[in-house]
Amino acid sequence: MTTTDPNESIALKTLSSQLVNVVHIDSKSILKASFDGLKVSFPPSAVIRPEDVSQVGEVLRLANEFCIPVTTKGAGSSLTGGATPIKGGWVLDLSLLNQIEIDVDNQIARCGPGAIVADIQEYAAEHNLFYPPDPSSKMFCTIGGNIACNAGGLRCVKYGVTRDYILSLSGYLPTGEAVKWGRATRKFATGYNIRDLWIGSEGTLGVVTEAVLRLVGKPVAQKTFLAAFRSDTDALRAPIELSRIGIRPSILEFLDRWTIECVQSFTGREVFQGISPHPVLLIELDGDPTLIEKESHQLINWLKESALCYEVAGTEEEAEELWDVRRKGSPAMKKLANTKLNEDVVVPLVEQANLVECVDQLRQQFRLKVGVFGHCGDGNLHVNFMYDHEDEDESSRAVQALKLLMKKVHELGGAISGEHGIGLAKTPFVRMQFNAAEWKTMKAIKEAMDPNGILNPGKIFDIFNPWEQKKINAILPWEHSHDEPKPVEI
Amino acid sequence: MTTTDPNESIALKTLSSQLVNVVHIDSKSILKASFDGLKVSFPPSAVIRPEDVSQVGEVLRLANEFCIPVTTKGAGSSLTGGATPIKGGWVLDLSLLNQIEIDVDNQIARCGPGAIVADIQEYAAEHNLFYPPDPSSKMFCTIGGNIACNAGGLRCVKYGVTRDYILSLSGYLPTGEAVKWGRATRKFATGYNIRDLWIGSEGTLGVVTEAVLRLVGKPVAQKTFLAAFRSDTDALRAPIELSRIGIRPSILEFLDRWTIECVQSFTGREVFQGISPHPVLLIELDGDPTLIEKESHQLINWLKESALCYEVAGTEEEAEELWDVRRKGSPAMKKLANTKLNEDVVVPLVEQANLVECVDQLRQQFRLKVGVFGHCGDGNLHVNFMYDHEDEDESSRAVQALKLLMKKVHELGGAISGEHGIGLAKTPFVRMQFNAAEWKTMKAIKEAMDPNGILNPGKIFDIFNPWEQKKINAILPWEHSHDEPKPVEI
Repeated sequence: MTTTDPNESIALKTLSSQLVNVVHIDSKSILKASFDGLKVSFPPSAVIRPEDVSQVGEVLRLANEFCIPVTTKGAGSSLTGGATPIKGGWVLDLSLLNQIEIDVDNQIARCGPGAIVADIQEYAAEHNLFYPPDPSSKMFCTIGGNIACNAGGLRCVKYGVTRDYILSLSGYLPTGEAVKWGRATRKFATGYNIRDLWIGSEGTLGVVTEAVLRLVGKPVAQKTFLAAFRSDTDALRAPIELSRIGIRPSILEFLDRWTIECVQSFTGREVFQGISPHPVLLIELDGDPTLIEKESHQLINWLKESALCYEVAGTEEEAEELWDVRRKGSPAMKKLANTKLNEDVVVPLVEQANLVECVDQLRQQFRLKVGVFGHCGDGNLHVNFMYDHEDEDESSRAVQALKLLMKKVHELGGAISGEHGIGLAKTPFVRMQFNAAEWKTMKAIKEAMDPNGILNPGKIFDIFNPWEQKKINAILPWEHSHDEPKPVEI
Repeated sequence: MTTTDPNESIALKTLSSQLVNVVHIDSKSILKASFDGLKVSFPPSAVIRPEDVSQVGEVLRLANEFCIPVTTKGAGSSLTGGATPIKGGWVLDLSLLNQIEIDVDNQIARCGPGAIVADIQEYAAEHNLFYPPDPSSKMFCTIGGNIACNAGGLRCVKYGVTRDYILSLSGYLPTGEAVKWGRATRKFATGYNIRDLWIGSEGTLGVVTEAVLRLVGKPVAQKTFLAAFRSDTDALRAPIELSRIGIRPSILEFLDRWTIECVQSFTGREVFQGISPHPVLLIELDGDPTLIEKESHQLINWLKESALCYEVAGTEEEAEELWDVRRKGSPAMKKLANTKLNEDVVVPLVEQANLVECVDQLRQQFRLKVGVFGHCGDGNLHVNFMYDHEDEDESSRAVQALKLLMKKVHELGGAISGEHGIGLAKTPFVRMQFNAAEWKTMKAIKEAMDPNGILNPGKIFDIFNPWEQKKINAILPWEHSHDEPKPVEI
């Protein structure tokens, strides 16, 4: 793919002469960079893979001068299309800037944006330190992407989200000027907090080239529990009641009855032998072993009163078996249809049962396959609509139901995205979350920080209906079902 | 005081007719609103005390239309002049918007900006909940002010700062348009994070009328320790070494030898009987009693190895006695001279000993009374320069030393303010912390969000040398020395 815009051709020629072996326009590179986890493909005119931080500045200076769209990309695992170059232009692939340096005394990690989250955790663990944010994509997603969408994951109920661990961000303005927001210090009250404005801005305000992460002490031990409940309401009381008792779980995951049915069909095994499918909680305690022992007793007492049945893992293998129920949620659903709309909505803790009730109604009313699972410790439930995108009627019903769900989330005082960001996929719903003044302010900030609008254009603000798009038939490196051999990777 | 600007007179007349009994122009109101904890006085033309949130919008709409400076004020306890109406105009006093509503199930507090921080803690405690940020002014400072400067305090080493507990902010743009940033949810990845841009922006970007705060479970118990160390370096190794052992203190406060000397002269008692003044740490553990017991053993082992001597409080009264050493730091210093420059600098944990060494050098080189105490658990040390502002030579030496200190902080990778903000007092130093691109970006954001520049003008960006100003001879309600009867309040 080469660009037909003469202006862009000049820019690309200049860039290629400045950055030797960094600019790629071969068809394989272009195809790979044309899509992400959302799988809608828009080819860029070039892919740039800087090997050095300063090259990022050079790329942006030129792009800004010639008004070329720049879409920053890490692993490309975004489920919202956050790294899709929908306006063409250049894809700035930062995966080679993946250094990780642990400063043990200061308890920080200095990371390139391309560093894999699981690698950061592993490096930290070597020094008995811990980077808690734990998105389920951690084996392949990058810290740059995590910063872009303020990623969360499973441990947020106790440890918080990505934002809570970022001390400073170095990087470039869209003009190619180097900046650093925040310091590698625990406190900071000096000037505007643009660090936290960049975090979660989905690559539309600047490009990160180094993040300084705060690390904490590694928890010494874990203990895992799985419990079934009579009703969603019973299960979803856990975050409130456990907190009242004084228990702070590190994991508090919910799976609704429908998801448990899916998992049982998928594995051919009952989650709790002899018990029909019921809503389930996966609970983990972590920290000091003495405290875990004490909290375990309290938790078991609560489970005896509140749950239908429960299991406690005595060994790591048993814990892995309990975890497997949660891990099978997603692959089990993917067996049901070829398309998944994964909505990572978040509502106040007390509204979660209302949200699940709404999904139950939508499932019946629209005859849909919809399951709810996720992080009920912080109100961040994943609602997964499964449908066959070649079936027009089913697709239409799924989209209608999705619209009603988002309306409900808004009414319940929630947010349409808790950890994935807006990207392209959630743009049809984002506008309802902001009044005219709020929307105008967000746009004014975008204009103030990116006057030529080159960074990740088309995201957050412009409406894009993902269900109207043809999806690319490609398998990403990390996509393989649990019971089949790994397919050919792109 | 009435304004002489005819434009402003019209605006004020309009406002007074719209908001009956809310606009004050009597001389006592004007004087009280003319200064804050920095005690440089600039009279406003009117003081507006809204009794209702919507009145804030009305005030701002009019102020924006007539381009009248608006300085938002709570208690007025800012030490940096953050609430000083240096450009005149209107003071928007939000102290009457002080409601506190605890939502126990959602573990949140909904607070007006005028709510006193200690009241929020007390209301939360009634439900066994806890709002951890703990500035030493908490008995009189407001949550609005805490949000404006992202206040910290003593417990940040374990619990973090104000920012870490703000879920959403409702308020008004300078145009008087109502906005809400964030949701009362634990996660949020929907649009730009303007909540965290407002936090710490010192009232220059918007006006908060309601904050939703995250609460946590109240710690069941505390245990307090006081220890003296052979050297600053020995004491300042604590944050690193305790973390390595796996101890997470809720309080880790440092007082340098010079400050301990001051405290001993002030109280007429030795901190540790028979031991000459040495650097001291106040350490507190909190949480589950079983865990405290375990951590106490580890801590005592560490103190036996590392400290010169130590005491453990067995009762609340004993704990109060240990705390008294820390609490006397500030009043003891105030006895030495009539003017204090309180610098709340923050450096990486490993650089704290270098910072204290620098202060030692400055003390000798410039023959100054300078003490260091504060939150060494997070690198946020308060450096207090005491001088007589009528003594020109001493004042000049203090200012020279202060400039060198700030340069050192910057060189050590630190920030000139960790929790007080820039206000007026730190404007002579803020520019060195930002390069041209960063500074331009901050100004662009100010312009984008406050096009007429009405909100808290003169703060952060314009240089103001506090040491060149005549201080007002006034005593704020909370200012009274510990050994004298309470003086007449203004």
